[in-house]
Amino acid sequence: MKIETVTIVGGTHGNEYTGVYLLKRLRRAGLRKRYKDLRIDLLLANPKAYEKGVRFIDHDLNRAFQEQDLADLSLSGYEANRAKAIHEQLGPKRAPKTDCLIDVHTSTANMGLTIIVADLRPFTLKMAATLQARMPGVFLYHIPPSAYGLRGDLPFLISLAPCGIMLEIGPIANGVVRHDRLLQAEQATLAALDFIHAANAGKMPATPKTIELYEHRGAVLYPMDSDGKPSAVIHEALQDRDFQPLKKGDPIFMTLDGKTLAYKGRSGLAPVFINEAAYYYKRTAFSLVETTTVALRP
Amino acid sequence: MKIETVTIVGGTHGNEYTGVYLLKRLRRAGLRKRYKDLRIDLLLANPKAYEKGVRFIDHDLNRAFQEQDLADLSLSGYEANRAKAIHEQLGPKRAPKTDCLIDVHTSTANMGLTIIVADLRPFTLKMAATLQARMPGVFLYHIPPSAYGLRGDLPFLISLAPCGIMLEIGPIANGVVRHDRLLQAEQATLAALDFIHAANAGKMPATPKTIELYEHRGAVLYPMDSDGKPSAVIHEALQDRDFQPLKKGDPIFMTLDGKTLAYKGRSGLAPVFINEAAYYYKRTAFSLVETTTVALRP
Repeated sequence: MKIETVTIVGGTHGNEYTGVYLLKRLRRAGLRKRYKDLRIDLLLANPKAYEKGVRFIDHDLNRAFQEQDLADLSLSGYEANRAKAIHEQLGPKRAPKTDCLIDVHTSTANMGLTIIVADLRPFTLKMAATLQARMPGVFLYHIPPSAYGLRGDLPFLISLAPCGIMLEIGPIANGVVRHDRLLQAEQATLAALDFIHAANAGKMPATPKTIELYEHRGAVLYPMDSDGKPSAVIHEALQDRDFQPLKKGDPIFMTLDGKTLAYKGRSGLAPVFINEAAYYYKRTAFSLVETTTVALRP
Repeated sequence: MKIETVTIVGGTHGNEYTGVYLLKRLRRAGLRKRYKDLRIDLLLANPKAYEKGVRFIDHDLNRAFQEQDLADLSLSGYEANRAKAIHEQLGPKRAPKTDCLIDVHTSTANMGLTIIVADLRPFTLKMAATLQARMPGVFLYHIPPSAYGLRGDLPFLISLAPCGIMLEIGPIANGVVRHDRLLQAEQATLAALDFIHAANAGKMPATPKTIELYEHRGAVLYPMDSDGKPSAVIHEALQDRDFQPLKKGDPIFMTLDGKTLAYKGRSGLAPVFINEAAYYYKRTAFSLVETTTVALRP
């Protein structure tokens, strides 16, 4: 697979400033000289939400890229239209104009640097493995279509290209940029471009025979108060422990009247996106993942 | 001074959830039994902004309490009206129905637990000193009217009562509650109520003869990009170093093309509200404070 065009995306969620500032950094970085074989585009995905400092204006842009929605002209709202414009620019899904997408996100949860993939194609997994080798501690998180009750057509922006990763960096508050996280996002993005560049030159880095990834298994919801808001907070024993396996009985919530609620699910699953600001509205306290080992075909 | 009514305020900024959840905790805490001498009201100051998860709908509610604005019926916008309703409920400023206000805020900056006062009345300062004695590491920050170019009439919600403090807790992302910070806010609020209760009973705790406070001196602005947004980020050497004095030449910014910019101001001033999300729109990178020692009159 020869990659000719890569699009680096920031501001898919308008209050996640790191990606937007990364685009500004990269615009000044002389990428054309460094990667002569690639056409690299930089895309501010949701400029209106960025301008207002909000995640989205009407709907989550990163859930707007299913083919049925892209074809549905009756959908109103800024992001529905914005998705169509981005699809026109980078897609169409079945014959995309861009070969690879890198979409930069942040989380209020302690996600460290997590690569999220929505497919398990060998090229994508080898890119992830190469990033892990270069930046120790990087997590790999796979969200299969079944996690969304879907058969294959995904709603994520990265689903527009045959190769795509999301970078998820945290913890960081919405509406701020941090020097350290910005450099981390840049380092990961350049590592991905280096990988693509090397692969194009027939010098794909050697990767291990298998890769460990965290596969999405579900979510744990907050108990609710009479006002439709959570009636408990993430227990301090769980806060910031993303990717650390849970055992039955571990404290997960403190209710507002001071009771500790324990985890009742299957042992061995690990929590991620713990206390993510963007998921309060859908009651999600954290997601659950399970480690699995996948063979990297040569 | 006998305090009869105290109002504890949360959600003055709708995306600072800690205060709102503190109100929910306190509603369940049996305050009436514990403080029989006090009437304690709990006020969710900006319910519409909380519902939407934003700082404010139209304007910053915590800058809406100057008498001229409260009297100006031509001001439109949700917060202008909300300020008038709160003024009606707690005020009027010249003959307030509430004796003491505790307004709970959070910051994305590493403010720890900071008590912000807008006056230097002995009762307020002794309350702050008592909180410091009970919770080591608490900072005391004074914003004099002159910081706003004002003579005396302040725009803050706490200016409605003769005794008022803001609690500023951080770092915490907007739109989330953390167990640890929620307990910290509760501990500080109960310490303030204990102080008032003891003072009412003629048993005001002994305080030192002087108190050290950080007095607001000004702000440092971001350099700007062509899109009206910052063209630099807080340097990693400065990030999270709130209340630590600056020297001339200390790195404060990294520009988007990678240059380090140094502090050129007076040595000895300390930065606070470093990288506060809410201040990007007014270009403020951080505020500057200077330590000063104030006598606590007996």
